[in-house]
Amino acid sequence: MSALPIRFVLFEPTHPGNVGAAARAIKTMGFTGLVLVNPACRIDGVARARSSGALDVLHGARIVPTLADAVDGCGFVVGASSRRRRLAWPELDPRECAGEVIAASRSKSVAIVFGAERAGLTNAEMDRCNALVYVPSNPEYSSLNLAMAVQILAYELRRAQHIDTRPPDTDSVPARAGDVERFYEHLERVLIDSGFLNPDNPRVLMRRLRRLFNRARLDESELKIMRGILSALAPGSGSPPSSSRESGAGG
Amino acid sequence: MSALPIRFVLFEPTHPGNVGAAARAIKTMGFTGLVLVNPACRIDGVARARSSGALDVLHGARIVPTLADAVDGCGFVVGASSRRRRLAWPELDPRECAGEVIAASRSKSVAIVFGAERAGLTNAEMDRCNALVYVPSNPEYSSLNLAMAVQILAYELRRAQHIDTRPPDTDSVPARAGDVERFYEHLERVLIDSGFLNPDNPRVLMRRLRRLFNRARLDESELKIMRGILSALAPGSGSPPSSSRESGAGG
Repeated sequence: MSALPIRFVLFEPTHPGNVGAAARAIKTMGFTGLVLVNPACRIDGVARARSSGALDVLHGARIVPTLADAVDGCGFVVGASSRRRRLAWPELDPRECAGEVIAASRSKSVAIVFGAERAGLTNAEMDRCNALVYVPSNPEYSSLNLAMAVQILAYELRRAQHIDTRPPDTDSVPARAGDVERFYEHLERVLIDSGFLNPDNPRVLMRRLRRLFNRARLDESELKIMRGILSALAPGSGSPPSSSRESGAGG
Repeated sequence: MSALPIRFVLFEPTHPGNVGAAARAIKTMGFTGLVLVNPACRIDGVARARSSGALDVLHGARIVPTLADAVDGCGFVVGASSRRRRLAWPELDPRECAGEVIAASRSKSVAIVFGAERAGLTNAEMDRCNALVYVPSNPEYSSLNLAMAVQILAYELRRAQHIDTRPPDTDSVPARAGDVERFYEHLERVLIDSGFLNPDNPRVLMRRLRRLFNRARLDESELKIMRGILSALAPGSGSPPSSSRESGAGG
């Protein structure tokens, strides 16, 4: 079975042992894609020892400066949350998450993002996620180790991979994370220009809008429609120089 | 919930880090019973560090000379097998195992026995088991770490124990269907006025937009934000006479 395009993203990990153990955990379950975002540790002898024989995955890990780089090109991004949140993300348990990830991986890359050992994921990182996954744990001691969380998700993914028989959805191609990001930038410009958003503090409202659209998991054609709507309602607001992409109306 | 009488038995473990990590793994999932059979390592600083805050479980571990001592009084004993065996034991996967263990623990103590890091369980130890549990893994690299195996089983046990106890989300109140409908009417008017939608045939595009927002399942506050955005981008487009509802921007 060829590897599915699933990335295990460790955001700013601090312990080399956890990085090594995560490499071992994913390889044991048949996966290979490890991405480290701005790691606060080196891949040293401790990491190698804890990776056991998974040196190929460990040394093959991509190291990138930002989460945006890590999830670039992904059609579905799930954040691993160490605690329950009462917010606007769909919260999946590991089993549900695995089913969604396997299904989504049939058409595009998928990322599962794990926060730093102590800090977890902040809202800024979660704003790039389509859903959260929460591993149920003892409320009086929910100190699930980072590599253990990776192991549980990888285990559930392997399981789901072998039982999932849903046909891929061929009508809908998930939008790429970078393109969705450009839509948010465009939306923010339009809302500031219109006076709806306070330019000095657009953050709270933009976060709510990101969550809403992330939850909906825009496909490519919907993204084009939304960009087209913004261009129609705010002519001249179109693509900034940073984007080489579409500005036309969809439909 | 009182702890179920479930023992996690490590047979002749050799790495203190694994013993500490196993203590943390079981405590994270709400269990406390750790038994070490003839350990080949001490509970040292490495074990304590890897146990994180689970020192109570680590230092509370029973240390016994033989497997017979460890499983004494148990009504059901499962051996964790690192490879598939074609033998006379029933072989369970972790999920099936968890169901059986939880059911059996209602009437008697239960033990799950994990072999030594390299050797696994020999036939002599398996002869004391009622069943085997096998964690499915990559056939080309099935090097599942001992503490990781403990974590996966503990995770499945917690899951089997509590099937779903998630509290309802009280922070987010779903928008009413009628209010969502008025948002779609408002959106359609704005898109026709802007020239984005063909007034003679708005249907296809409006259907796509409905699906997008329906999928996101707007809550009341998000709906207000969306109405507010429409009013800001198309002043005067507000509520038609048919609606008695809000037109103000949300926040």
